Amino acid sequence: MSISHDVARTVSPVLIVGTGLLGASIGLALRLRGVEVLLEDTSPSALALAADYGAGRRLEPGDVPALVVVAVPPELTSAVVAEQLTRWPEAFVTDVASVKSAIVTELAVRGADLTRYLGSHPMAGRERGGPISARADLFLGQPWVIAEHAQTSPEALEVIERLALDVEAVPVHLAPEQHDRAVALISHAPQVVATLLAARLNGGSPSEVGLAGQGLRDTTRIAASDPGLWLQILAANAPEVVEVLTGLRDDLDRMITDLSDVEAPGARRDIVELFIDGNTGVRRIPGKHGTDATYASLVVFVDDRPGELARLFAEVGEIGVNIEDVRIEHSPQAQFGLVELSVVPDRRDALADALEERSWRISR
Amino acid sequence: MSISHDVARTVSPVLIVGTGLLGASIGLALRLRGVEVLLEDTSPSALALAADYGAGRRLEPGDVPALVVVAVPPELTSAVVAEQLTRWPEAFVTDVASVKSAIVTELAVRGADLTRYLGSHPMAGRERGGPISARADLFLGQPWVIAEHAQTSPEALEVIERLALDVEAVPVHLAPEQHDRAVALISHAPQVVATLLAARLNGGSPSEVGLAGQGLRDTTRIAASDPGLWLQILAANAPEVVEVLTGLRDDLDRMITDLSDVEAPGARRDIVELFIDGNTGVRRIPGKHGTDATYASLVVFVDDRPGELARLFAEVGEIGVNIEDVRIEHSPQAQFGLVELSVVPDRRDALADALEERSWRISR
Repeated sequence: MSISHDVARTVSPVLIVGTGLLGASIGLALRLRGVEVLLEDTSPSALALAADYGAGRRLEPGDVPALVVVAVPPELTSAVVAEQLTRWPEAFVTDVASVKSAIVTELAVRGADLTRYLGSHPMAGRERGGPISARADLFLGQPWVIAEHAQTSPEALEVIERLALDVEAVPVHLAPEQHDRAVALISHAPQVVATLLAARLNGGSPSEVGLAGQGLRDTTRIAASDPGLWLQILAANAPEVVEVLTGLRDDLDRMITDLSDVEAPGARRDIVELFIDGNTGVRRIPGKHGTDATYASLVVFVDDRPGELARLFAEVGEIGVNIEDVRIEHSPQAQFGLVELSVVPDRRDALADALEERSWRISR
Repeated sequence: MSISHDVARTVSPVLIVGTGLLGASIGLALRLRGVEVLLEDTSPSALALAADYGAGRRLEPGDVPALVVVAVPPELTSAVVAEQLTRWPEAFVTDVASVKSAIVTELAVRGADLTRYLGSHPMAGRERGGPISARADLFLGQPWVIAEHAQTSPEALEVIERLALDVEAVPVHLAPEQHDRAVALISHAPQVVATLLAARLNGGSPSEVGLAGQGLRDTTRIAASDPGLWLQILAANAPEVVEVLTGLRDDLDRMITDLSDVEAPGARRDIVELFIDGNTGVRRIPGKHGTDATYASLVVFVDDRPGELARLFAEVGEIGVNIEDVRIEHSPQAQFGLVELSVVPDRRDALADALEERSWRISR
């Protein structure tokens, strides 16, 4: 598997304004295609670093970009997009902010030429930011939302689709309002919930929090995210996030009321219904590759010794079974892990037998 | 690694009442130690199945257990414990229910002999239930909470500690009230939150939910849990769960108020403070083996072809680096996965170089 190095669809030069994680990654990906990339950043050190990493070269007098990608913090995005539309009257302009409809509204208020602006949202990111974390393959196979608005021109649409394809992303078309509703539901509200749940742990003693299992770890993992960045994201999508959170708050109130008097008529039924709603909701998340393929799982005990996990995978490879997924569950108190291997159902038992023959301990 | 087969500390015979996942797993683990295990269940088929799997033999007239383990659904636990205390006047009795203080209170009301009762909570479980899912090693290295109450006798304490050690669990001593507060915080409230968040997804269109990333998957994974079982667990620990959920609801109200008028004085600061609380809370969860060891991570692109993951691990093994953790992130749209390997920091770069030499694509 590799990024294919055939001819770029994107017309050179492309100006990237803002050389953080997303801007620098787009630069790296376009450079791999041979696109000429120009860079600009208010931070001279971030700009120099992105150039050193190979994301492009500093914008020079006389340069005239055909496309401008604005990759600045969310709260600056509409101002910078408006500025770039005025500065380059022939260029198309996109941005990569994670909230889309407010930008279109603000640009309309500023009287910007909306036929040359079309917003993007690459659904890719990392827990770490900055040009140091940039990767040419950050967008590979990930959805790249193209947020067409009422004044989107066919030319702008084509330019942004080419950009998404050139960085190996998968273009997904959603209106700005639909995009913002979707990310409120699948990204912003989950972030708030994980954050608030993790915040509760400050009230527990070490011996209480020490009983934590994998469920708590998974549920709160994203609570480690950057407060300042999330303030900007949530502020930009506040009405949509408030709508999802209000629905959640109402359900939480129902649960609190039900649990405050479990003997009340209908309380038990209501709790069960909320849990059934949770069951149906989680099943709506597409599985691997967007399909609902289900795999059989096999749990293997692996000592926490150098090479043990590698030896397990080497032997699974020798046995000739493809591993579809892996989950490692660490025992909080012991020097070993439970490794859950997901495999196609009809190979599970053969794999279990073969591993046992090789002295692996399998949970039956 | 294996369960050590030295002499059992537990005196035979042990009667297990309820042969579901936990009861049958305790039976299997004790049988491995040579303990005589007697089984009882209101379901003849569950009993026969547990016996077939090797968890013990059916209780016969004339049997007199030295220890009774009650492993029935939470809402039946105190009644069955009381019954067993009366039925076997010389036996110690424990239970494995996930909520502890209500049982002691209910037994006191029933006038039960509390010196012979001491509750347990093995912090182990699986998403699947029933004797078919039972494993002798279910408790290996996991915390086994021993919930000492005011009338616990030294003899009862010794018997239950031996039981925990015989199934290779790690005894953890918490008073019933402290246990219930801990599980409300680290297990029951997270379950409710994951469930209610997943329930929100029922309001999204397939194209909206289709943008889901790993964050949503992790945050909602446990929402697939059994509604009927969770009703019983939550009902038994309702006051403690309500306290955690009420704190969470108050924070959620703060967040909704802040986001409903982000321009209000103090709103932005309050949002950031909630996020900082989330940052500090998630850091309180003990890492692998209860330590805060941090590992360096390396992201490798792996084709979704049979043997590719196995080949990666085999080659990592040849390179001689121990993998501390693995996370596979599936691209929703593409036929490959990003495999994040956690390794000790000073081996990361050498591993990255060696993998690149072997033509693996590494994210730099």
